[in-house]
Amino acid sequence: MTKSLRPNLNIDALFLGPKSENAVFFREMMDYAISEHIHWRSGFHPSDATFITSLDRHEHDYRETLYQTEGILNQLSAKLKNTSVPFFSPRYLGHINSDTLMVSNLAYVMAMIYNQNNCTYEVSPTTTELELESGLDLCRMFGYDPEKSWGHITSGGTVANYEGLWVARNLKTLPFAIYQHPKTKALLSHKSPQQLKNMPTAEILDLITEIQKIGVFEEIRDMTCRGIGVKPEILGKLLVPQSKHYSWTKAADIFGIGQENIISLPVNEHYQTDVAKMREITFQLIEQGEPILAMIAVVGTTEVGAIDRIDEVVALRQECEKRYGESFYIHVDAAYAGYACSMLLNEQGEFLEYDTLHSHHRSIGIMPEEISWPKPEVYESFKALKHVDSITVDPHKVGFIQYSAGAICMKDKRILGLISSKAAYVFAQDENQKEATGINRGILGSAIMEGSKAGATAAALWAAHRLLPLNISGYGKVIAAGIVTAHKLLSKLSTLPPIVVGKHRFEVHTMLSPDFHMINFTFKEIGNESLNNHNALNKRLYELCSYSTGRAYTNDFLTSSTALDYKEYGDTPWHYAEKCGFSREEWEKVHRIYVLRAAIMTYCLRNEEHFQEFWQQLNAIFIKKLNQLVDEEEKKSRLISGLYTPFIS
Amino acid sequence: MTKSLRPNLNIDALFLGPKSENAVFFREMMDYAISEHIHWRSGFHPSDATFITSLDRHEHDYRETLYQTEGILNQLSAKLKNTSVPFFSPRYLGHINSDTLMVSNLAYVMAMIYNQNNCTYEVSPTTTELELESGLDLCRMFGYDPEKSWGHITSGGTVANYEGLWVARNLKTLPFAIYQHPKTKALLSHKSPQQLKNMPTAEILDLITEIQKIGVFEEIRDMTCRGIGVKPEILGKLLVPQSKHYSWTKAADIFGIGQENIISLPVNEHYQTDVAKMREITFQLIEQGEPILAMIAVVGTTEVGAIDRIDEVVALRQECEKRYGESFYIHVDAAYAGYACSMLLNEQGEFLEYDTLHSHHRSIGIMPEEISWPKPEVYESFKALKHVDSITVDPHKVGFIQYSAGAICMKDKRILGLISSKAAYVFAQDENQKEATGINRGILGSAIMEGSKAGATAAALWAAHRLLPLNISGYGKVIAAGIVTAHKLLSKLSTLPPIVVGKHRFEVHTMLSPDFHMINFTFKEIGNESLNNHNALNKRLYELCSYSTGRAYTNDFLTSSTALDYKEYGDTPWHYAEKCGFSREEWEKVHRIYVLRAAIMTYCLRNEEHFQEFWQQLNAIFIKKLNQLVDEEEKKSRLISGLYTPFIS
Repeated sequence: MTKSLRPNLNIDALFLGPKSENAVFFREMMDYAISEHIHWRSGFHPSDATFITSLDRHEHDYRETLYQTEGILNQLSAKLKNTSVPFFSPRYLGHINSDTLMVSNLAYVMAMIYNQNNCTYEVSPTTTELELESGLDLCRMFGYDPEKSWGHITSGGTVANYEGLWVARNLKTLPFAIYQHPKTKALLSHKSPQQLKNMPTAEILDLITEIQKIGVFEEIRDMTCRGIGVKPEILGKLLVPQSKHYSWTKAADIFGIGQENIISLPVNEHYQTDVAKMREITFQLIEQGEPILAMIAVVGTTEVGAIDRIDEVVALRQECEKRYGESFYIHVDAAYAGYACSMLLNEQGEFLEYDTLHSHHRSIGIMPEEISWPKPEVYESFKALKHVDSITVDPHKVGFIQYSAGAICMKDKRILGLISSKAAYVFAQDENQKEATGINRGILGSAIMEGSKAGATAAALWAAHRLLPLNISGYGKVIAAGIVTAHKLLSKLSTLPPIVVGKHRFEVHTMLSPDFHMINFTFKEIGNESLNNHNALNKRLYELCSYSTGRAYTNDFLTSSTALDYKEYGDTPWHYAEKCGFSREEWEKVHRIYVLRAAIMTYCLRNEEHFQEFWQQLNAIFIKKLNQLVDEEEKKSRLISGLYTPFIS
Repeated sequence: MTKSLRPNLNIDALFLGPKSENAVFFREMMDYAISEHIHWRSGFHPSDATFITSLDRHEHDYRETLYQTEGILNQLSAKLKNTSVPFFSPRYLGHINSDTLMVSNLAYVMAMIYNQNNCTYEVSPTTTELELESGLDLCRMFGYDPEKSWGHITSGGTVANYEGLWVARNLKTLPFAIYQHPKTKALLSHKSPQQLKNMPTAEILDLITEIQKIGVFEEIRDMTCRGIGVKPEILGKLLVPQSKHYSWTKAADIFGIGQENIISLPVNEHYQTDVAKMREITFQLIEQGEPILAMIAVVGTTEVGAIDRIDEVVALRQECEKRYGESFYIHVDAAYAGYACSMLLNEQGEFLEYDTLHSHHRSIGIMPEEISWPKPEVYESFKALKHVDSITVDPHKVGFIQYSAGAICMKDKRILGLISSKAAYVFAQDENQKEATGINRGILGSAIMEGSKAGATAAALWAAHRLLPLNISGYGKVIAAGIVTAHKLLSKLSTLPPIVVGKHRFEVHTMLSPDFHMINFTFKEIGNESLNNHNALNKRLYELCSYSTGRAYTNDFLTSSTALDYKEYGDTPWHYAEKCGFSREEWEKVHRIYVLRAAIMTYCLRNEEHFQEFWQQLNAIFIKKLNQLVDEEEKKSRLISGLYTPFIS
């Protein structure tokens, strides 16, 4: 392998560190960020009169105002120190949270003081460009053509998902509008009425180019649902995996589609969309003449980290186009796992072949001999992303950027024409400012869902992408640390001997083969056959490992949890209930299994030595927590003996 | 007047200052913010093993990674210093931008490092409470009952407007759902079909309580547009002032309403909604049997700062209820001027009587003798806000908070039931966490449009509201500074003698009597009768006063601009064109007038002495810019003589 010109990235030097190991550097750079701005101000038009003199600054109320500012900040700091959750520590393995990059925190502060607003280029001449550049970084990572695609920052994955659905919905109604317009009807005369309902995205986008040439684009756009409002019967069904994030039910409400027009795609026992059922449902809809508004697939569910078979979704679409001349829009919600795509790219940004991937990972030292990631089907999923129409990805999740930073990438930026608008005062002066992307820099607020937005977020993302390129030696390295730790932890948990607490014995069960770095597990009391008791046990265990039973700061271990139930997942959680040893009868009675849930994002445990130390510690913590729980139950049982049914036997 | 216990706020001590006058304090507090967090980390479980040793930190790649981080930050700083716009300076009078509060910048940084996410209480135990508290501060300012109302932070005013429309739309379809359900039909049997279309908000909200008691709320909610999708004919028309922010056309698209269902309410020559026409349109719609989805009114348009007659909107609604038994939802977009409500409240948060307001303003020294604000009708508008259903207000505008911070307040929080949803992993543990507001703290992400969101924004807003209470001696004081300056500047501009440049003479025209602190003006060449030339002149003048003709940092004066045209405003801009001396014929030919636009937010020019100095400077700058413009034109004219038509005569 040729040696890269970039220095070898040291992961430990990227974060402030679990004991603030990089405090000196962080503080120094923070001071630099502030100083630069302070000097920028004081050097501005030096001959200007001084509005605030040193005499003014010695006034009583001046000093009092500063003291009061200080007092409020003291109070805020006390609140934060008292109740915050120590995401930075490997003792926190819960939600999709961890330490965040020093560079992104510093860049945010540096840019924040300039207070640019990426809604309008005129008030964000620095940071709008950083946003477009960072957006294209993401497009490139997914394999989109940077000349044709575009990406931008949203306030989070929820808004990114909204935007994906927005373009899909407006696109869906465009063929009907074109067909209704006398000047453009002929463009679609070769289509059957049924084919109009389910046209391929690329074909519709080509039509946009055509009708722009004819000069009736705006007129026709007014005839889409944007202009005339939604007609659910034209839109048809929104196909979303059962594992759906609740942003999709919100989206179906917001976009006027109606939640009853969501079709839940069943998931398999790994919580991935069941490919066979997805195919069956799709074919059935097409054969029934029902339009498909969009197909949503998930790369990293927020409950178990499952990764859908994007390659299969893409293949299904091709098959529909061939078989029926019909198609559908594909949006991928990769809010959680999207950044992991960087693990599959070499330093030139090319996809590494699967055959060589694992040896490559080992040769650069990011994966030990016994662990390999991803599984072949997960690899194929990432590789197929370049074919989908839009992708949500959250820098504030596995991009290790602080909140709030979501993003969306769209394969073909012509689609923006269907949602864009403009305000005179925002754009009047910027008509000429096309840049390399072809996106008019002045129009950001008119081509996206939000309006005013912090330019500082773009600075944070840009800086992170510069330090950590979106490939195997940048982000790949940091993400690998979490994946390695997840695998190690899973293997330890799965083989942990029962923990004995007095007359009780508890064993750990894990949900098998995670697609990414989220682990779900439960403690089961041996001999307990009641699923309700099992759920109560794990709920209480969660409480003992969370802010809810005391100060998180003094807790030994913090995690999160979720309940997998029939209402959402049908019979899927049964597989896990069965694995834990519960009877089918119990499952049917309770229809819900409560699990502990840990996204393993920490970079601190990637070395075997550190991991072993942590694992010993965690073992002791489990014993301590279980003891605590047994004590509590026994106390309660004594107190209200006869009335109280303990959830341990 | 009783003396307040709070210290007297000194405005100059609130901001970093135009020459970084408060650099020492800012730097010290920034260091405090960082230090507190650094020590928080290093004090966490002191006996834990050290993952990163000092030996590790001396590794070659470790140091290289830090150097590279530094290099990227150097590069970012260079970019920011090179192209940023000096919003902090009184030389910038353009968009709704100015210096931002030190306390909010510091609070943001302090909280950012803890990286809380207000989507879920579990990962934001500190900042979710700060968000709810700040939201209620805003509710109280508008006169809402804090027991019944709620407010929260959005990424900006656009999203806040969306949320207002979202609840209004879902509310609209609820009576039909109730009427269709056999168990609840009787609740509406006293209503005519027409009355069902336009029920009063409060009545529908009472029905929510009723159907919750019957136990069919969720079932019925699924029968609203949330469940079944939008039917534009049920929703009816969205009434939005002609002056509408483009977020409303985006909203009509997003919510499936259709832009053609927006009715533009004509504005009067002050760009306020024309009350007579609003009444006429409303009565007509009701008489035609057309539902009114919602009435939007604006408190501070982004183009001229006009403030609609909220009292008249509220009175009209009462009249409709009395006359027809019909009503409509009212949402006020007070993104720009909402915070100015604080100027009308005493320290107990009560509305000051109009009679005593101006003497009060003078007695506390925030308004000089010759200036008074607001006009009686603007006062009545603010006072009527407590009757409207929801209000958008942007902390990142006149709240002097850095981007991004918008907010929405809703009068009756029962309305949240129509949009809320939940995700198991987010809420499972928080069912019991009701707090004083009655809002379940765990559900924030399920009761709002967005999902993940920075807790740091809440910290910034909370800290600002603590330092600057939302009344006359807090925010009122800072906002008054801008209003006073706007009035002074307007008076100077209106009486400025013609500026002579060679054979050309230029006079200034101003748009009269602004409702808030935005000023619009143009330079007219005396003798020029061409509106096109006038527009070109002012467009070029804007360019010379903006980033677009060179580095903003070295420019003497920076402003913004907008074009008021027939397409948007009908004949309204004609009044201004006429005032500038253009013929009706010219107006009808061009149908567009370009104006310079300045939101006067600076606190630096409130003293007469500072203002006079600035005005002298500005005068010289105008002369300089006009000279530059004349030079350019003459050069171009010489270069391509015969082909080029100069826009000066």
